[in-house]
Amino acid sequence: MRNLKLTIAYDGTNYVGWQVQPNGPSVQEAVERAVEQLTTKQTRVYVAGRTDSGVHAIGQVANFSTEANIPPEKVKLGLQRFLPDDIVIRNVEEVSPDFHATFSATGKHYRYLILNSRTPNPLLRNYAFRHSAPLDIDLMQAGANYLLGEHDFRCFETRFPNKATSVRTMYSVKVSRQAGWSMWGSPAGLGEKEPFVVFDIVGNGFLYNMVRAIMGTLHKIGQGKWPPEQMREIIESQSRAVAGETAPAQGLYLMEVMYDGGITHQS
Amino acid sequence: MRNLKLTIAYDGTNYVGWQVQPNGPSVQEAVERAVEQLTTKQTRVYVAGRTDSGVHAIGQVANFSTEANIPPEKVKLGLQRFLPDDIVIRNVEEVSPDFHATFSATGKHYRYLILNSRTPNPLLRNYAFRHSAPLDIDLMQAGANYLLGEHDFRCFETRFPNKATSVRTMYSVKVSRQAGWSMWGSPAGLGEKEPFVVFDIVGNGFLYNMVRAIMGTLHKIGQGKWPPEQMREIIESQSRAVAGETAPAQGLYLMEVMYDGGITHQS
Repeated sequence: MRNLKLTIAYDGTNYVGWQVQPNGPSVQEAVERAVEQLTTKQTRVYVAGRTDSGVHAIGQVANFSTEANIPPEKVKLGLQRFLPDDIVIRNVEEVSPDFHATFSATGKHYRYLILNSRTPNPLLRNYAFRHSAPLDIDLMQAGANYLLGEHDFRCFETRFPNKATSVRTMYSVKVSRQAGWSMWGSPAGLGEKEPFVVFDIVGNGFLYNMVRAIMGTLHKIGQGKWPPEQMREIIESQSRAVAGETAPAQGLYLMEVMYDGGITHQS
Repeated sequence: MRNLKLTIAYDGTNYVGWQVQPNGPSVQEAVERAVEQLTTKQTRVYVAGRTDSGVHAIGQVANFSTEANIPPEKVKLGLQRFLPDDIVIRNVEEVSPDFHATFSATGKHYRYLILNSRTPNPLLRNYAFRHSAPLDIDLMQAGANYLLGEHDFRCFETRFPNKATSVRTMYSVKVSRQAGWSMWGSPAGLGEKEPFVVFDIVGNGFLYNMVRAIMGTLHKIGQGKWPPEQMREIIESQSRAVAGETAPAQGLYLMEVMYDGGITHQS
C-alpha cells in the first residue's frame, strides 16, 4: 500500500466544513469521492484540521492509502478533474506508511482576518470578519502574548471536553495591520489605507473553535472593552463563559500544517 | 425633485449583470427595489456602466430622482438595509438636477485581473481569469499602446452596431505584474511571487464587451501568439472576427467613473 499526502486549499463558503455531515456538502465528501473516482476504490481520507463550516484552508493536509500505481503529479491532476473549483489540490507526495495527517501533525498555523473598515467590501463578505470601529492592535498583541507557552485552553473550547486533554502549547502569536489587496483598488477596505487586522497563531494543536474564541476575546481587547491582562484571567478561570464570543467563521484560514520533517508549505 | 448620486460596489458573481433581465437577478433590480422600499415610490435608477453577468464593480455610479426628504448619509444606510451583502452603497450625494449617471460620464476606468499561476486559487475563482503559462507583459503593454487616442473600436464590439458611433478615445493603458494579496499567505497564486497580471484602461467610453475583447487580444499577444503590432491591424480592420476572444467576465472590474467635476472615486 502507498500512502499519499495531499496539500489542499479550499473556499469553505459553500461547505458544512471538512467533516461529512448530514446537513450539507462537506470537503471530505468531495475529496473522498474524487479519490474513489480516480482509484476506483472507496477510500477514507484523513485530515490534519477539521475546519468548520465557512472556514477556509490554504494549506490543509490530508492523507490516504491506495494500491493505485499512479505517480503523485498525475494523482494531483486526476483528483482535480473530479473536484469542484472551490477545492484545489496544491500538492501530492508519497510519504512513509506511518504518516497520518491527523496524528503526525506537530503544529498548525491559523490566520484570522478582520476587515477593519467603515464600509463593507462586497468582494470580501465571505473572506473576512468586518468590524467598523477602531481596533488597537497593540492592546490585542499584548493580550495575545498571554497565550504563549503551555496552558490548559479549555476556556476557549466550545464543547468541552472534546479531546482527552485541553492542554496545548502556542509557539507564536502576532497581530498586525496590513494594507491588504490593492488589486481591487486602493484600498481594499474602500476607505482606509490599512484596513486589515491580521491575527496569526502557531501552536502544537487547537481545540474545537479555539481560534475563533481567542479572536472573540482579542476583539473585546482591541476595542478597549477588556484590558489585555484579562486574557490571563480568562485562561486561569478555565471557564468558556468568561471568554469572548466565537468570532465568525469566514475570517478563519488554516494556513499550514507542520510535521516533524519540517514545514509542509512555506507561507 | 432631488437628484441623488450613488457610488456602488458589488460582487457580480450571482447576478445576470446590472440590467434587469428575465433570466435571473440583476443589480439594477436589487437597487431599484431598495430605493422603492426606502422612499415608498417606484423609481428608475440610471447607471454609468451596464456591467455584464459576473463582472464586478468597485466604483459604479448611478442616480435617481426622489421627493423623499432623507439626508444623503441616511439614504446610504437606509438603502443598505434593503440590499444583500454583495451590493454595497459606498457613497450618496446630492447633485444638480441635470446630472445623469449615463450621459454625464466623461470617462471610465476598467481593470482586468489575470491570475498567472500554475495552481488555481479556490478563493479567487470568481475574481480573476487564470492563465497558467507565462505571459510577457512588455509585449502586452506594447500591444495595448496602439489603443491610445481616438479610434473606431468596432472591432472589439460584440453586437455591432450597438451604439450610434463606435469611435472612442482611450486616455491610458497599463499592463503591470503585481504580487497581489498576501493576506491568504504569500503568494496569492499559491506558487509564484507576482502572480497577477493587471490591465488598467481609462477611456471616455466603452462599447459592449470592449474591454474583454481587448483583453482576449492582449492575452494572445502576451503568449507570443500574435505580435504587438497586430493590435493596430485589428483596429484598422474594423472586424470583430480578427480580434481575440472575449475574455471571461469574472476578471473584469469597473473601478471608477469620471464626471466633469473630476474623479468620483480616487482609486
